[in-house]
Amino acid sequence: MSDIINIGLLGLGTVGRGVWQLVSRDSEIIANRLGARLKIKKILVRDPSKERGMDIPADILTADARDILDDDDIRIVAEVIGGTDIARLLVDKALAAGKSVVTANKELMADYGQEVLTAAEQNGVDLMFEASVGAGIPIIHPLKESLVGNRIQRVMGIVNGTTNFILSKMDAGQGYAEALAEAQALGYAERDPANDIEGKDAAAKIAILASIAFNSRVRAADVFTEGIAGITPLDIMYARELGYAVKLLAVAKCDAPTGRVEPELDVRVHPAMIPLSHPLAAVKDAYNAIFVEGDAVGELMFFGQGAGSLPTASAVVADLFMAADNLSKSIRGRLGCTCFNSWAIKPIDQVESSFYLLIEATDKPGVLAKIAKVFGDQEVSLSSVIQKRTHEGIAEVVFMTQKVKEGNLRAALAKLAALDIIAGVRNAIRVEGGQE
Amino acid sequence: MSDIINIGLLGLGTVGRGVWQLVSRDSEIIANRLGARLKIKKILVRDPSKERGMDIPADILTADARDILDDDDIRIVAEVIGGTDIARLLVDKALAAGKSVVTANKELMADYGQEVLTAAEQNGVDLMFEASVGAGIPIIHPLKESLVGNRIQRVMGIVNGTTNFILSKMDAGQGYAEALAEAQALGYAERDPANDIEGKDAAAKIAILASIAFNSRVRAADVFTEGIAGITPLDIMYARELGYAVKLLAVAKCDAPTGRVEPELDVRVHPAMIPLSHPLAAVKDAYNAIFVEGDAVGELMFFGQGAGSLPTASAVVADLFMAADNLSKSIRGRLGCTCFNSWAIKPIDQVESSFYLLIEATDKPGVLAKIAKVFGDQEVSLSSVIQKRTHEGIAEVVFMTQKVKEGNLRAALAKLAALDIIAGVRNAIRVEGGQE
Repeated sequence: MSDIINIGLLGLGTVGRGVWQLVSRDSEIIANRLGARLKIKKILVRDPSKERGMDIPADILTADARDILDDDDIRIVAEVIGGTDIARLLVDKALAAGKSVVTANKELMADYGQEVLTAAEQNGVDLMFEASVGAGIPIIHPLKESLVGNRIQRVMGIVNGTTNFILSKMDAGQGYAEALAEAQALGYAERDPANDIEGKDAAAKIAILASIAFNSRVRAADVFTEGIAGITPLDIMYARELGYAVKLLAVAKCDAPTGRVEPELDVRVHPAMIPLSHPLAAVKDAYNAIFVEGDAVGELMFFGQGAGSLPTASAVVADLFMAADNLSKSIRGRLGCTCFNSWAIKPIDQVESSFYLLIEATDKPGVLAKIAKVFGDQEVSLSSVIQKRTHEGIAEVVFMTQKVKEGNLRAALAKLAALDIIAGVRNAIRVEGGQE
Repeated sequence: MSDIINIGLLGLGTVGRGVWQLVSRDSEIIANRLGARLKIKKILVRDPSKERGMDIPADILTADARDILDDDDIRIVAEVIGGTDIARLLVDKALAAGKSVVTANKELMADYGQEVLTAAEQNGVDLMFEASVGAGIPIIHPLKESLVGNRIQRVMGIVNGTTNFILSKMDAGQGYAEALAEAQALGYAERDPANDIEGKDAAAKIAILASIAFNSRVRAADVFTEGIAGITPLDIMYARELGYAVKLLAVAKCDAPTGRVEPELDVRVHPAMIPLSHPLAAVKDAYNAIFVEGDAVGELMFFGQGAGSLPTASAVVADLFMAADNLSKSIRGRLGCTCFNSWAIKPIDQVESSFYLLIEATDKPGVLAKIAKVFGDQEVSLSSVIQKRTHEGIAEVVFMTQKVKEGNLRAALAKLAALDIIAGVRNAIRVEGGQE
């Protein structure tokens, strides 16, 4: 029980402080299970002299990465800096130095997952990244291990807490700017919330999940991404009337997980209308949830806090425990790169979805017929048309379409926009979560 | 890639057939990940000559367990017989013969978990049991591994599909008998559904989850258990009016996961009223969901199908994969017995809950005051009193109590029942899922 496994911590921001807190409380559970104690020996920070308001011995803080990378007593490195510049460099060096690496870095794993996993394999060490998606929600390990008997058909999730918080508040009647300000005040959204709002954070996460689910590499840049800035309270109100909630959804589907020589992947992030009866519709505020569909297991959902200091640290510490356990058994773990497929990603205009459309048109007889003709010409079938408010001769009309190729829908909307009877195509929101 | 890891399958019922189906489709995912193929070499059945309507070679069926236990080529045994008689005997023998064991057997793990896990450890093999709770929902591995950095405060779940189906149907207006008959017609409930209805199935599952969550052995017999037979459509109607759903809930709490010398556990199965805003309230039909609260990760929920051939087989196959991976790396797994605590289980009369009470009383002035006095004498505080229907001079009154020790509540109800103004105490249902 007196054995110690030394850890080097790279970064002492929100997540790093949580990791320090959990590791330094010296868990009897970990000690009993591991037969050893985890200990943070050194922490890399920019300025060791900075006042942190935490009980951390001054001599374990360093601004020199070599104090960690060159220390053979440090067998595991936890990277919680984020980004793909310095973090990537340090992870590469740690792996090359024969240290196992635990990371919470979604950008790193989404953009360079293959490279760092391969480097880990070549150096005979572990690279674990449970914390990179959904914070403490166990999802990477379950997808990689617990569902190995399945062919995964779909992964679909609310993986960004900031946008879910904003959309939840808008659903409760707040305006977009007000909801964003509250998210910032509560610390959910950064001062520059662009990464969240534009869907880039979610794109990195679904790239990671899709790569695991389909054993085929998907990078963040491969993911079609549309943010939530275009969603109005009117859309949310009409969605609710029609029995839907509006969520920023990350979607990954495989059109033929087996049976075809070359399946295509469909991976995207965008606002979506989800039936209120779907479990994802009930995921409120800053919570995350990931819905997985496998051909044996059916539908699964994993729900929890998707961000925050201790929830993220919970996943980092579990990975540290597993990496330490592997070290003590002298094995590498099971989480190497599993992308043995190289499947194409479907261009967005080839993806089929149902759509909610909000269109403003002149309120005159024959107008609906003209609109319907444009849709018909582009093979867009409508499932319902509801005329809403009319003011100053302009009617708001909500259309719900059948499944249609996005390219056809875009062509129809472009033609409509050119008609003088159309005051504007106000929004087009994909519908997800129905029966496939 | 030509390596084969041979498996012996004990049992070919609903789950066994699913395991055969998944293993025999010869998954490229497993083969790529494992560098070997899983193969079922022998299946133990009662009658090998029975017609099964499945494409299974006749020569792999056997009625003689020695064909599996004595075959050194068979390195892993999957037990899907169930129960604690023959299944326990065979698991013991397989472990003693140096084979790793994967089991879907909740009774075995709840009643003899410690014994078989210790036997596995002594024989240097794995014993895995993900399929024993929640079928294909990953919960055992996440609790054991992904949450190791947490002190778990609470595990709470809907872990029996049959009773959840019946209560969902009753919520939709069906009577109890009608809902049970539909569950039986759909194959959810056995012809003798007592194990489900009386909560015994759920008790075995929460015993397993509690043992892992609190690292302290809980057996099925330690779990206070109350079934759903006493729930009426009236209770469900009043629950909904008050903002609750009625669910058969399995609950495990630790009153002081740390900080006290000797915490006490609270482990029980009973119908409960859950606020409609709680994620568990939305779990419908035969679905299962397990809610976990840890001091770092916060609230998590795992949702999915809790029974069925392929969902259960999904978990068995994942465990077979992991056991095979451990064999190929010559290590034992990480899932040994972790019950290093020996915490007491609180007697039910010491457990504090809020209660919903449905009482029939004479509809006369002063009656409520008399009832309130009895409650007050036993230190039962009321949070609301609502008089419902009155017929033939008898009023239905619904009381909601504050948190109260169950012993006190029972004493109050006994005194009330003896009063001549009381026509009957019709039901007492615990309320769960509020803020602790």
